[in-house]
Amino acid sequence: MAQKFVYFFGDGQAEGRADMKNLLGGKGANLAEMTSIGLPVPPGFTISTEVCTEFYKNNNTYPASLAADVTANLKRVEALMGRIFGDPKNPLLVSVRSGARASMPGMMDTVLNLGLNDQTVLGIVAQSGDQRFAYDAYRRFVQMYADVVMGMEKEVLDHLLEQKKEAKGVHLDTDLSADDWKELVAEFKAAIKTELGVEFPEDPQAQLWGAIGAVFGSWMNQRAITYRKLNNIPAEWGTAVNVQSMVYGNMGDDCATGVAFTRDPSTGENYFYGEYLVNAQGEDVVAGIRTPQPINRAKETNLPPMEEVMPECYRQLAAIRDILEKHYKDMQDIEFTIEKGKLFMLQTRNGKRTAPAAIKIAVDMVAEGLIDKKTAVLRVAPEQLDQLLHPSLDPKAKKNIIAKGLPASPGAVSGTVVFTADEAESEAKTGRKVILVRIETSPEDIHGMHAARGILTARGGMTSHAAVVARGMGKCCVAGCGDIKVDYVGQTFTAKNGTVVKKGDMITLDGSKGEVMLGGVATVSAELTGDFGALMGWVDEFRTLKVRTNADTPHDAKVARQFGAEGIGLCRTEHMFFDAERIAAVREMILSDDLEGREAALAKILPMQKGDFIGLFREMKGLPVTIRLLDPPLHEFLPQAEQDIIDLSKTMKVPVSALKHKVETLHEFNPMLGHRGCRLGITYPEIYNMQVKAIMEAACELVKNEGFSIVPEIMIPLIATAKELSVLKQNAVVICDEIIARYGVTVEYLIGTMIELPRAALTADEIAVEAEFFSFGTNDLTQTTFGLSRDDAGKFLPFYVENNILPEDPFVSLDQSGVGKLVKMACELGRSARKGIKLGICGEHGGDPSSVIFCHKVGLDYVSCSPFRVPIARLAAAHAALGN
Amino acid sequence: MAQKFVYFFGDGQAEGRADMKNLLGGKGANLAEMTSIGLPVPPGFTISTEVCTEFYKNNNTYPASLAADVTANLKRVEALMGRIFGDPKNPLLVSVRSGARASMPGMMDTVLNLGLNDQTVLGIVAQSGDQRFAYDAYRRFVQMYADVVMGMEKEVLDHLLEQKKEAKGVHLDTDLSADDWKELVAEFKAAIKTELGVEFPEDPQAQLWGAIGAVFGSWMNQRAITYRKLNNIPAEWGTAVNVQSMVYGNMGDDCATGVAFTRDPSTGENYFYGEYLVNAQGEDVVAGIRTPQPINRAKETNLPPMEEVMPECYRQLAAIRDILEKHYKDMQDIEFTIEKGKLFMLQTRNGKRTAPAAIKIAVDMVAEGLIDKKTAVLRVAPEQLDQLLHPSLDPKAKKNIIAKGLPASPGAVSGTVVFTADEAESEAKTGRKVILVRIETSPEDIHGMHAARGILTARGGMTSHAAVVARGMGKCCVAGCGDIKVDYVGQTFTAKNGTVVKKGDMITLDGSKGEVMLGGVATVSAELTGDFGALMGWVDEFRTLKVRTNADTPHDAKVARQFGAEGIGLCRTEHMFFDAERIAAVREMILSDDLEGREAALAKILPMQKGDFIGLFREMKGLPVTIRLLDPPLHEFLPQAEQDIIDLSKTMKVPVSALKHKVETLHEFNPMLGHRGCRLGITYPEIYNMQVKAIMEAACELVKNEGFSIVPEIMIPLIATAKELSVLKQNAVVICDEIIARYGVTVEYLIGTMIELPRAALTADEIAVEAEFFSFGTNDLTQTTFGLSRDDAGKFLPFYVENNILPEDPFVSLDQSGVGKLVKMACELGRSARKGIKLGICGEHGGDPSSVIFCHKVGLDYVSCSPFRVPIARLAAAHAALGN
Repeated sequence: MAQKFVYFFGDGQAEGRADMKNLLGGKGANLAEMTSIGLPVPPGFTISTEVCTEFYKNNNTYPASLAADVTANLKRVEALMGRIFGDPKNPLLVSVRSGARASMPGMMDTVLNLGLNDQTVLGIVAQSGDQRFAYDAYRRFVQMYADVVMGMEKEVLDHLLEQKKEAKGVHLDTDLSADDWKELVAEFKAAIKTELGVEFPEDPQAQLWGAIGAVFGSWMNQRAITYRKLNNIPAEWGTAVNVQSMVYGNMGDDCATGVAFTRDPSTGENYFYGEYLVNAQGEDVVAGIRTPQPINRAKETNLPPMEEVMPECYRQLAAIRDILEKHYKDMQDIEFTIEKGKLFMLQTRNGKRTAPAAIKIAVDMVAEGLIDKKTAVLRVAPEQLDQLLHPSLDPKAKKNIIAKGLPASPGAVSGTVVFTADEAESEAKTGRKVILVRIETSPEDIHGMHAARGILTARGGMTSHAAVVARGMGKCCVAGCGDIKVDYVGQTFTAKNGTVVKKGDMITLDGSKGEVMLGGVATVSAELTGDFGALMGWVDEFRTLKVRTNADTPHDAKVARQFGAEGIGLCRTEHMFFDAERIAAVREMILSDDLEGREAALAKILPMQKGDFIGLFREMKGLPVTIRLLDPPLHEFLPQAEQDIIDLSKTMKVPVSALKHKVETLHEFNPMLGHRGCRLGITYPEIYNMQVKAIMEAACELVKNEGFSIVPEIMIPLIATAKELSVLKQNAVVICDEIIARYGVTVEYLIGTMIELPRAALTADEIAVEAEFFSFGTNDLTQTTFGLSRDDAGKFLPFYVENNILPEDPFVSLDQSGVGKLVKMACELGRSARKGIKLGICGEHGGDPSSVIFCHKVGLDYVSCSPFRVPIARLAAAHAALGN
Repeated sequence: MAQKFVYFFGDGQAEGRADMKNLLGGKGANLAEMTSIGLPVPPGFTISTEVCTEFYKNNNTYPASLAADVTANLKRVEALMGRIFGDPKNPLLVSVRSGARASMPGMMDTVLNLGLNDQTVLGIVAQSGDQRFAYDAYRRFVQMYADVVMGMEKEVLDHLLEQKKEAKGVHLDTDLSADDWKELVAEFKAAIKTELGVEFPEDPQAQLWGAIGAVFGSWMNQRAITYRKLNNIPAEWGTAVNVQSMVYGNMGDDCATGVAFTRDPSTGENYFYGEYLVNAQGEDVVAGIRTPQPINRAKETNLPPMEEVMPECYRQLAAIRDILEKHYKDMQDIEFTIEKGKLFMLQTRNGKRTAPAAIKIAVDMVAEGLIDKKTAVLRVAPEQLDQLLHPSLDPKAKKNIIAKGLPASPGAVSGTVVFTADEAESEAKTGRKVILVRIETSPEDIHGMHAARGILTARGGMTSHAAVVARGMGKCCVAGCGDIKVDYVGQTFTAKNGTVVKKGDMITLDGSKGEVMLGGVATVSAELTGDFGALMGWVDEFRTLKVRTNADTPHDAKVARQFGAEGIGLCRTEHMFFDAERIAAVREMILSDDLEGREAALAKILPMQKGDFIGLFREMKGLPVTIRLLDPPLHEFLPQAEQDIIDLSKTMKVPVSALKHKVETLHEFNPMLGHRGCRLGITYPEIYNMQVKAIMEAACELVKNEGFSIVPEIMIPLIATAKELSVLKQNAVVICDEIIARYGVTVEYLIGTMIELPRAALTADEIAVEAEFFSFGTNDLTQTTFGLSRDDAGKFLPFYVENNILPEDPFVSLDQSGVGKLVKMACELGRSARKGIKLGICGEHGGDPSSVIFCHKVGLDYVSCSPFRVPIARLAAAHAALGN
C-alpha cells in the first residue's frame, strides 16, 4: 500500500486528529479535530509534513502518489460543496495555507480565492450575484499569488492600484467599481509578464501546484532557515499544506467574520470574549480600518453586538465555545466566518493569555472540574509570574522611548534623574521619587540604590552589579544601556537620538523591556489574588526541590519569606560592610600594616555584624540560614578615583601618598581571579575569625535568650582545593566550639563551601570530606568555565546571542552542557564522598525556570534566588517534579 | 614466632640487604649490604622502622620482645669486638643513629661514644693508653647526649667550655688537658642536674634506651612533622635506629677519617676522589678547622695524600671503591675511618653530582659495561639539564647579594642597569651589556628584552610576561623581586637593605636562584659535550612523546631545532605585531570605526606577517608548524599612560580625546576573561582572515617556488563552544582553499584549537567534530580552572606554597588532580569523537619534567616548550617511556 500523504476533513469526518500536529501541523490537526467533533468546518485536506521531508530528500520532487491523492481529495471536497474546481459555471475556490508544528514567521502564509481566472470569475459572479465582489476577489487573488508564489515585488502592483484610484479620483479601495477591478486584473497580469517574463497561470491546477510548491519552497528560504536556527527547530520537521474550500464573510450584510477567546485572555474571567465585523474579511478585523464590534454585552458597549445582530449565529457560536472548552479543556482562541447566515469555524488553538489570566483560568478550571491540579500548575509558565510581582506600564499610555538597554530587573517606574548615590539618598529623604543613573554601579552605591525607585546604567550585563543588586531588592533596573552617554561633570546624560536629560528631569524605566522613556508614564500595579495563593499551594504540594532566598538584610529576608522562601541560601556579608559607619572600620583594617591593627579595626565591626545576624536569624526563625564569609577583594572597599582618595585621606587622617600606595598595592589585573574569597581567609585569618565569631555569638544569644532553634550554615567562598577548606574549617570549628561552650547552650552548625571554581567541581570528592554542604555559585562558575568576565562580556556576548553562537546568555540561563556538566559531576563526586551531603545553588540561575528544572534533575536539595523570584522558582520546581 | 624487629650485621654476615631500605632505613640497609659483601664494617644492629610504627600505634610502648632482641644482638656485637657494653675494664662503646627511608632534617641524628661513665672511661684509658683521648671522648658524649637526648640548652655547656678555656688561658679545645676534660665532665653533669632537675644517666643500658627513645621521639617532633608535611612523607614510614660499635680516627697518627666519591662528583671524571685527615674525627673533615688532604695524586696537590701516608690502607680503600661501584653500579659517596692502621667503612650511598658529572658518569658506565642505556638515561634528572644550557656564577667568586626574587629564567649575567626598553636597545647598540629593570614588563618591552642580557622585575610571578618571554629567549631573568622598589622618575631602584642602584650601575643576576647582586660577578659557562649528544641520542631511542617548541621568530626556531625540537607547537602571532613599523598599522586598525578602515590597515600588515611565516617555515622545513591566530585583547596594543597617549596622538595625528575614548572603551575589568582570542575572530573576522591568508600564501609560495613540503596547523585560541570553532573554521577553509587554487599547488593544512578553557575540555567531544587537533593551553586552563590570575597570584601564591596549602606553584608544575583531570577528560572525549586526533600541549608545563611525564601518561602526541627546555622535555619524555 502506498504511504498516506493527504488527510481529508469535511462533513463531520476527518482522517486527522488534534494529536497529529507533528504530521499535519497545528492548523491542519485542529481543523480535522473540529470537523470530527461535528463543528461546521469548510471541507478540505492537509498534505502532511512528510511530503515536505520527502520533497527535500528526493531533490525537490514530490512522492509519486501525491498528485493522484490530491486529485482524489479535491474530488471529495467538490462533492461536498457541490462545486467543481476550475468549472467556469460553478467553480470551487480554495485557500492554500502552510502549517508547521510551530508557527514560523518567514514561511509562505496564505493564498486565498485560488481557482479564479477570466472564466471562473464569471461563475463566481453567478454564484454570488455580485460582480464587484467577484472581481475584487479576483484581483486580490492575483495580487496575493504574484507576491507569495511568484515572488513579484509587492510595490509594483500596489503602485498600479494607487494609480487607478488617482485616475478615478477616489481615495478608498471600496470606492472602486467592478469594472475598475476588472481593468486592474488585466493591468496586474501585464505587469507580471513584464517584470517576471512569465504569464500569470490561468489554469487552476497550475495555480494549485504553484501554491503548494511555494509553501514547501518557503520552508527552505533564508528567513525560515534563520528562524529555525535561532529557535532550534530541526529542518526535518517540515511543514504541512492545508487546502480548504473558501467561505466568505464579505458577500453582504448576512455575512461576517470574527475572532474570539473562550475566556477573557487579559483577566481570565469566564465569559465569552470576542470581536466581529459584518460584511468583512478576516484581515479587516485585525487591520483596524473599521472598528470591530463585541460579540456580546458581557462588557458594556455602544456598538451592536453579534448576539443582537445575528442572534442565531451567536447562539451556535456560544454552543461551539462550550464544546471546544470541554473538548480541549483549555481556553481557546478561535476564528470564524459567517457566509450568508451560515457559521463556519476556520481555526481553534490554545489561546495566549496574561499571567493573571493564566492563573485565574487554571484555578477556575479546577473548580469547574475541567482539569486537575497538576494540569493547572503546568498551565502557568514560571516566567510569567514576574509580571504579577511588579508594576507595569499602562499599555494605553503614550511612550517617548529615547534609549534601550538590558531588561535587568523587571517593573516600571517614573522618577527624576540623579547621578550619585548620595543625591539619591538625600532627594529620597525629601520625599522625591528618583532614578539613579550611573555609568555603572559599585558596592559603594548600595545606599543610593536603596533610596532610588529605579536604576539606569550605561554599562554592564544582566549580571552586572546593578542588575544583581536591583533584582535582589526587587527594584526596577535597565542596565548596560549603551544608547546613553553619561556626563557626571555636566550632570546630564545624552541619548543616542540626541535627547539630553539633565539632573532633575523626569524619566520612566521599563525594567521588563529595557526601555528608557522621557517624562512620566502611567503604571498599573498587579495584585496577588486569592487565585495566586491557591495555585502556589498546589505548587508546593507537587515540588520536591526546596526554594531559599538570597538575602542580606532582615527586610529582604522578610519579603522573601512572604513569597514562600524556605530559608536563606546566600547572605553576602560584605554588603554589611558598606554601611557608612562600618566602611570606616573596614578601611582602617585594610590600611593596618600589622595583625594588631587589623584586629583592633575588626573588633569595631564585630558587634555590628553580630547585630545583622541576630536580625536575619529572627526573620528566618526555624529556617536554615547560609552565611557566606567575606568574598570580594579588599580593593573594592577603597576608593579608586583621585579626588575620592584625597577626600578619604582627610576623613581618615592618613597621608594621601600612603592611601595611594595601598590602592596601588591592592590593584589587580584580573580581580575576578585574584586575592579574594577564601584566599583572604587564608592570608588574613583574623577577618574570617571575626565573622565566624559574630555568627556564632548571634546564634548562641538567640538560643539562650529567646529560645531559638537555629542551624547556621557557614559558607566559605572560592574554594579551589580541599586543603584550603580544611584549614579554614579547623579555624572556624575551634571558634564555634569555644563560643558554644562559653554560652553553655546547644547549637548545631554546618560548615560548607561554595562550588564556584571548576577545580572545586572536579575535586568535589576531596572537598566533600571536609564540606558539610555544597552551594553552587553558578555566576562565578560560569565565568571561570567559559573564561568569560560578566563585567566585560557586554562587548561581545550580545553579538554571540544575536548570531546564535550561544543559544542564550549563560549568565541568565545555566549552560547545561558545559557548566551544568561540572555541576552534575560535583554532585556525584560529593555524594560519593559524603552520603546525603546537602546540595544547593545560590547563583542567579536559582531563579531561572529552565535552570531550576536542571537543578531538580541533578538532585539538588534546594535553589536559592532573589526574593522576588521565589514564587517563580517554586513554580518551576513544581513543573520539574511533574516532569515538564 | 615473635616478629623480627632487630637486624644484625658484622663479620661478613648481615640479616639485612640494600633493598630493605623501607624496613631498615637507607643507612642501616647499606651497612648490612657492605657487611655481606665482605667490607670491613664495625658490627652493630638496626632496630627496624616497624618498631617506630608499633611504638606510636601502641601509645608509646615498645613491642614486648624488643628488649630481649636488643640484648641478644648487643651480645653478638660484644662477642665480635671482644668487649663488653658497660664493662669498666674493657668496655664496648657504641654510636646510636637514626635512619629513615629518606634523610630528614629535624630528626635526632647521632650520639657517639655511648656507654661511657665514670667507671668505663677508665677502661677506655686502658684500651687506648691515652687519658686525654678518653676524657675528651667522655665529655663529647655527655655534651651530645645532654643536647640531643635530654633536651638541654646547648649554650649552657658550650659556655662552661668557654669558661674553662678562659680559666686555663688557652684558645683551642686541643690545648685543654685530660684533667681539664675530666673537670668539665663533672661540671657538665652538675649543670645538667641544675638545669633539668635530673641526674645524667650513669648506667650504659639507661643511656642506650634513652638514645633509642630519643630517635623514635624525634620522629614526631614539630620540625620533623612539618618537614614530612612539606615533602609528602607519610608518618607511617617511621625511622629505624642503628646501634654500631665505635671506631676512632683520632687515637693517634696511625688513625684517620675521610670521605670519598668513587668518581669526581663535579666533573664525572673516572678517578677516585676524596679527602681525609690524620688523627681526626669525621666531623673534623667537614668542619673546616683543619684543611683536609686529598687521598691521592689524581689531581695536583701540595699536601701529602693518603696513598703515600697510609699506602696499605689506601690500597684497601681503592679496592673497596672497585667493589662498591661494581656492586652498586653507580657512583658512591663513602665515609671511612682508620683506627690504628685498620680501615673501617661507616657509610656508602649513591653520590650526588652536578649535571655534567651525571651525564659523563652515565655515558662512561655504559661504555664500561656497568649499566645499560636505559639505566644511563634514568640516571640523569631532566631538571638538571638546565644547568648545562646556561652560564652559572663562578662558585668561588664573592657575591654581594642585595635582593632576592623568583628564579624566573636560569643563567647568570652581569650588566649595567637601564630602566626602559628603548634605553636597553640603544645602549646595547653601542656594545654595552645591560640589564633591563622594570616594575613589570609588557609586550611593548619585547625589543628591550631582546637587547638586554638579563631582566629584573619587581612584580609578577613565575609565569608573568617577563618570565615567560625571558625563558622563551633563553635569557636570564629574576622576576617578582618584591625586595626592590623601582623609581622610574629618579632612574633608580632601592633594595630592601637600603642599597640604591642608579642607572648605569653594574649588577649581576642569578636567574637560577633569583639573586640580585651589586657589581659584577665572574661566571662560568658550561659546554655541551659529546657525552651530552650520546645521552640525548639514547633519550630519543626510548621516548615516544614528540617534543616541539614554542617559537615566534626564525631565530628561536633555529635554536630550538638545534636542541632537537621536532616542530613548532606554538607560534604566537601577536608577538609579530609589536615590531615598531607594525604596531602603527595595528593601532590604525584598532582605531578604525568601520570594516573598510580596518581592512586597509590589515592590508599593510599582511605582507609582513607573510614574511614572518616564510621565515619560520624555512627554518622548520619538513616539520609541523602550529600558528595561533591573534589572542590578546586589543587594548594591549594601545598605550595606557597619559603621556604615552599624548605622544601617540601626535605620531598618529589622531586627537588625544579620540585616543583616550578608544582606550576607555577597550578597558576591561578582567582582561584575562575578556574580549580576546576567538572572540576577536568572531566579532572582527577580518583580522583572522588576514592571518589565515598570510599563513596560506606563505605556505603556497614556498611549495611553488622552493618545492617545500609543509603542513601548516592553524590554531584558534580560547574556544569555549564548538559553534565558535565551526564558524571560524568555515571562514578559514574558504580562504585557504581559494589561495591553494590560486597558486595551483597542493598544500595540506590542519585547523584545530587550543583547549584552554574548562568548557572546551568538558565539551571536547563536540569540539573535536570540528577540530583536527587539540593543543592544551595549560597556562590559561590553570588560570580558569583554579580561578587564579597568574598576574595577581604573586600576592598569595607564595604564601600558599610555603604553607603547603598548594604542594607547588600550579603554573610551574601541572596540577594533575584538577587541571590534569580536565586534560585527561578532554583527551578521552576528543578521541571518542575523532579517532586519532592530534593532541599536544603548548603551555609552560610542556617544559616541566613531571608535567611531561603526565602528558606521556594521558597519551598526548607531543609537548611544546621554550627552546632552551627542549632537551629537558626530551629527557623527561624518555623517563616517562621508561616508566619513571
